[in-house]
Amino acid sequence: MKEKLYIIKIGGALIDDPELLDQFLEQFSEIKEKKILVHGGGKLATTLADKLGVEQKMINGRRITDKETLDIVAMVYAGGINKNIVAKLQQKKCQAIGFSGADANLIKAKKREHAEIDFGFVGDIEKKSVNRKLISKLIKLKLVPVFSAITHDKKGNLFNTNADTIASVIAQALSSKYDVELLYCFDKEGVLEDVENPESVIGNISEEEFSVLKQAGKLHKGILPKLENALGAVKNKVNKVFLIKETQLKNHIENHHGGTEICL
Amino acid sequence: MKEKLYIIKIGGALIDDPELLDQFLEQFSEIKEKKILVHGGGKLATTLADKLGVEQKMINGRRITDKETLDIVAMVYAGGINKNIVAKLQQKKCQAIGFSGADANLIKAKKREHAEIDFGFVGDIEKKSVNRKLISKLIKLKLVPVFSAITHDKKGNLFNTNADTIASVIAQALSSKYDVELLYCFDKEGVLEDVENPESVIGNISEEEFSVLKQAGKLHKGILPKLENALGAVKNKVNKVFLIKETQLKNHIENHHGGTEICL
Repeated sequence: MKEKLYIIKIGGALIDDPELLDQFLEQFSEIKEKKILVHGGGKLATTLADKLGVEQKMINGRRITDKETLDIVAMVYAGGINKNIVAKLQQKKCQAIGFSGADANLIKAKKREHAEIDFGFVGDIEKKSVNRKLISKLIKLKLVPVFSAITHDKKGNLFNTNADTIASVIAQALSSKYDVELLYCFDKEGVLEDVENPESVIGNISEEEFSVLKQAGKLHKGILPKLENALGAVKNKVNKVFLIKETQLKNHIENHHGGTEICL
Repeated sequence: MKEKLYIIKIGGALIDDPELLDQFLEQFSEIKEKKILVHGGGKLATTLADKLGVEQKMINGRRITDKETLDIVAMVYAGGINKNIVAKLQQKKCQAIGFSGADANLIKAKKREHAEIDFGFVGDIEKKSVNRKLISKLIKLKLVPVFSAITHDKKGNLFNTNADTIASVIAQALSSKYDVELLYCFDKEGVLEDVENPESVIGNISEEEFSVLKQAGKLHKGILPKLENALGAVKNKVNKVFLIKETQLKNHIENHHGGTEICL
């Protein structure tokens, strides 16, 4: 039987709330099984860009990561946020070790290709982008990898990469070796039938149900990429994939309770 | 016989010069023996602090690292600079992996204690601060650690720590296992008898000679802490310690030539 591995993604809203983040990291540090944390960015990078007068570039409503913006997100995500999370986890006796995808070539991305838009320093990744063997070796040393959403191309460039996708591809890559459970943590109880009603959690969503919900316009914009990455994971042999509320991490793991499960 | 390990420190001036840095990293990546890189900060943190209106606090002429300054140096050193160096080394087929001292608790510091001055988030370290066993395990995985000058206290705080000292204590800690050669790389040919004359390199300096030179006022201010850290290393069983010119790294390693050797 494969050993259990939790891959847990947290997002910007949590990172922007120090108290909530601390509570979450407490729950995370208490997980006894092997685990990996993937974190997004939060508002800090945007705030810093504003203060420095670096404008957010948009083309056809899509965000572009120019060199100045990349320099900011690399500093903020891989430096400020990542190292603060690692230090807080170390305080909680969790043997955290922070990474970008450039470190040890753990995640090698390709610059996003698009017929009309040059997205700048945005990297796309897939299952084979992940240095599965080395991550396994690091986990065997009882280390707890903490990934920021920065990757590289092995040509000397850093890239901004979607953190939901990073969590999904790491989960896919490690599923041949581990019994992986991928948890997308966010500020809702799960995927909600009615976004105003926290009791309207949909217990599970299959690929087909996802298409139906999407076409019916029932999924609010922020949750779409999360669900697409979650589906990508289950289609690529990740054993379990859930969207859960951040504050429910411990409850979910101990009581197998709550959230929305994504299935085939 | 112990295996050879180079521990190489580079400073701010090199980091501020992209072309020179690239040439240095090329030479570094070509070293066949086991190796570790430690880097300082450069002007980027100060420039960023200026732009953000964060003033440099001084007490009795000593620099204080307040929380705002710490946040900036953590981002710049452990994020921006560290990940860019790692990406460049990866491009050159060097299996670099970037660390702060918080990562995997590799370097645990103590907040600087001083009778009159509160230095803020400044961490002091010694030989036993270094997680020697884990660094050895990472080196065995053929990884090339790249350390930024950020440490932590295992109580959730990050610290600003002198990069020369980091290189020295890592060298000390690893000398029981490896045949360590510690190289402080900077922009001079070595310690100069006459700072205006690059041909006046002092071939070697003992502890006694250091005291004489220091009292005679013959050592310019910038080189003092480097020499003190270098002496600390030889006194703690580091096999070889040199101060060399950055551009001479390859020449030094291949031809055992140039620079100033520090000895007991």
